[in-house]
Amino acid sequence: MSPPLSSPPLSSPPLSLPLTLADVYRARQRLAGRVALTPLVPSPSLSARMGAPVYLKLETVQPTGSFKLRGATNAIAQLAEQGATRVVTASTGNHGRALAYAARALGIEAAVCMSALVPRNKVDAVAALGARVVIAGKSQDEAQLAARSLVRDEGYAFVPPFDDLRVIAGQATIGLEILEALPDAATLIVPLSGGGLFGGVAFAAKQIRPSISTVGVSMVRGAAMHASLAAGHPVDVEERETLADSLGGGIGLENRHTFALTRLLADDVVLLDEASIARGIAHAYREERLVVEGAGAVGMGALLEGRIQNIAHADGPIVVVVSGANIDMTVHRRIVTEDQYAS
Amino acid sequence: MSPPLSSPPLSSPPLSLPLTLADVYRARQRLAGRVALTPLVPSPSLSARMGAPVYLKLETVQPTGSFKLRGATNAIAQLAEQGATRVVTASTGNHGRALAYAARALGIEAAVCMSALVPRNKVDAVAALGARVVIAGKSQDEAQLAARSLVRDEGYAFVPPFDDLRVIAGQATIGLEILEALPDAATLIVPLSGGGLFGGVAFAAKQIRPSISTVGVSMVRGAAMHASLAAGHPVDVEERETLADSLGGGIGLENRHTFALTRLLADDVVLLDEASIARGIAHAYREERLVVEGAGAVGMGALLEGRIQNIAHADGPIVVVVSGANIDMTVHRRIVTEDQYAS
Repeated sequence: MSPPLSSPPLSSPPLSLPLTLADVYRARQRLAGRVALTPLVPSPSLSARMGAPVYLKLETVQPTGSFKLRGATNAIAQLAEQGATRVVTASTGNHGRALAYAARALGIEAAVCMSALVPRNKVDAVAALGARVVIAGKSQDEAQLAARSLVRDEGYAFVPPFDDLRVIAGQATIGLEILEALPDAATLIVPLSGGGLFGGVAFAAKQIRPSISTVGVSMVRGAAMHASLAAGHPVDVEERETLADSLGGGIGLENRHTFALTRLLADDVVLLDEASIARGIAHAYREERLVVEGAGAVGMGALLEGRIQNIAHADGPIVVVVSGANIDMTVHRRIVTEDQYAS
Repeated sequence: MSPPLSSPPLSSPPLSLPLTLADVYRARQRLAGRVALTPLVPSPSLSARMGAPVYLKLETVQPTGSFKLRGATNAIAQLAEQGATRVVTASTGNHGRALAYAARALGIEAAVCMSALVPRNKVDAVAALGARVVIAGKSQDEAQLAARSLVRDEGYAFVPPFDDLRVIAGQATIGLEILEALPDAATLIVPLSGGGLFGGVAFAAKQIRPSISTVGVSMVRGAAMHASLAAGHPVDVEERETLADSLGGGIGLENRHTFALTRLLADDVVLLDEASIARGIAHAYREERLVVEGAGAVGMGALLEGRIQNIAHADGPIVVVVSGANIDMTVHRRIVTEDQYAS
């Protein structure tokens, strides 16, 4: 039995979700010592701009450079307890890197299936962590089919990138950390892709603090969750190149958890164009002294573009989840040296 | 009574120091909730280069962008307990920023005296934190005289940048965190300027793990502690412009604590030229996805230049303290876009 969610739904009655706050606390126990308790740092420049305190939750300092290590570690730890010896996933990069790192730390084998659109630096990073890399097709869905065949033919246990309660519970530990460090947090800005990060963080935050507002931020180019919310059910969208490449990929037409969670918990969803994402990356570098990937910059981009004003609680603290740092540094250097992105 | 230090001294008999590990634990209690528990992240590229695990202790994510917040917070919290209502210091920037931040958090006034050589971005940052800024002279020593006059004439309590047991105990909490996260740490690489950071971290680390090796890293241009160690007593050196501007300034001819601590605890001191510091900054950006100031990059620079090989314990984990991020971003952008610093 899960407790009723106290946040009013956008367009559907409250669901009885198969996730509880206790699952999130148990995830935290599994993560202890394996995953960083990440800092929550004030941003003076964004605070001045917003007229309210703005804090950045820095998942960029996780050992694999993104929040994905939380969900992967929670899932693999549970699989290992159950006797699994090899795990596989399909990933746009950060989840694959996290799976490889977590599996090695827990002493089991890992394989990672990726589409040919995944940037080279992310492929190399997974291979360097000792995982078997399988390149398959040109979309996240095709990579997932390859992973399924390893499960069927070679006895691997599948760890989904986002639509999995163990993964969601792992990402949700970010919500616990935020509310413990900043009990009066009023607005959460979270990158939104498949919904594992957004759904987990929003779930934990609204369980603890029902009045908190949660905003998901995606890119214009290929926002599968946004299109699915608009359609009222999971739909496919064309995958396109974007600076926020970690946010690419479908949510799965057979989505089990994250679509419902996001529909229930998102107070708003904001879409950013490429220039706004670049502006977020440039701001992070110049003002926050942070290197962030496109997906990690969307929250800052949304604030800079004035897209959160109508949603944020006046004067209440705003927390931006800065989800990762794994950007191609050639791209990063180009963005931070172009004057057009001066903030 | 302080317990005897278990590390062999370089050139003097063991001292009975007026600092104990209990002081460091009490400092940690004062810092709880005010100062970040900073992440200790693995560096795959430096680990491959060194043939041993290398970890980076990221003081760059402290709210004021450097480790200095620890010592300032510990000192001001004690002064506030004793009834002080205004504090003053002389600072090359990071300590001043930390003092301003900590004083405001504790509800008391702050004044910061700086030399005219301090970079503009650091002056502005202190003023933005609500502190009174006093520009005085062209050296750290002249700025200190100005601060002394505020103490004499206006009732301010002085918080020294480094040569103060409360400040040293605050910085020493970094050593506790490192040894708790990585009990088998074998070698510590720590930026060395006035010796507050180095002395504190080395003290805590050697109390807990006597076999650990500690290396201080300074810049060639104006390494006052290195010159003092060579002379056998505190000496003045000419202040010069350097990329590692946070390491500039004298140690004080009347040095009370940090000279003795450094002499006792440093297994080696390495000096880096400007090109090697720049190489550390460029490496941090390209490989670690970190923006670091010159002083924060010296540990990485020393590893990249092969200056630690003879000191580091073979195969044992190496921890590099990355002390701060407060670099002029125009300088940073120039360094990371110049090909000569490719690592």
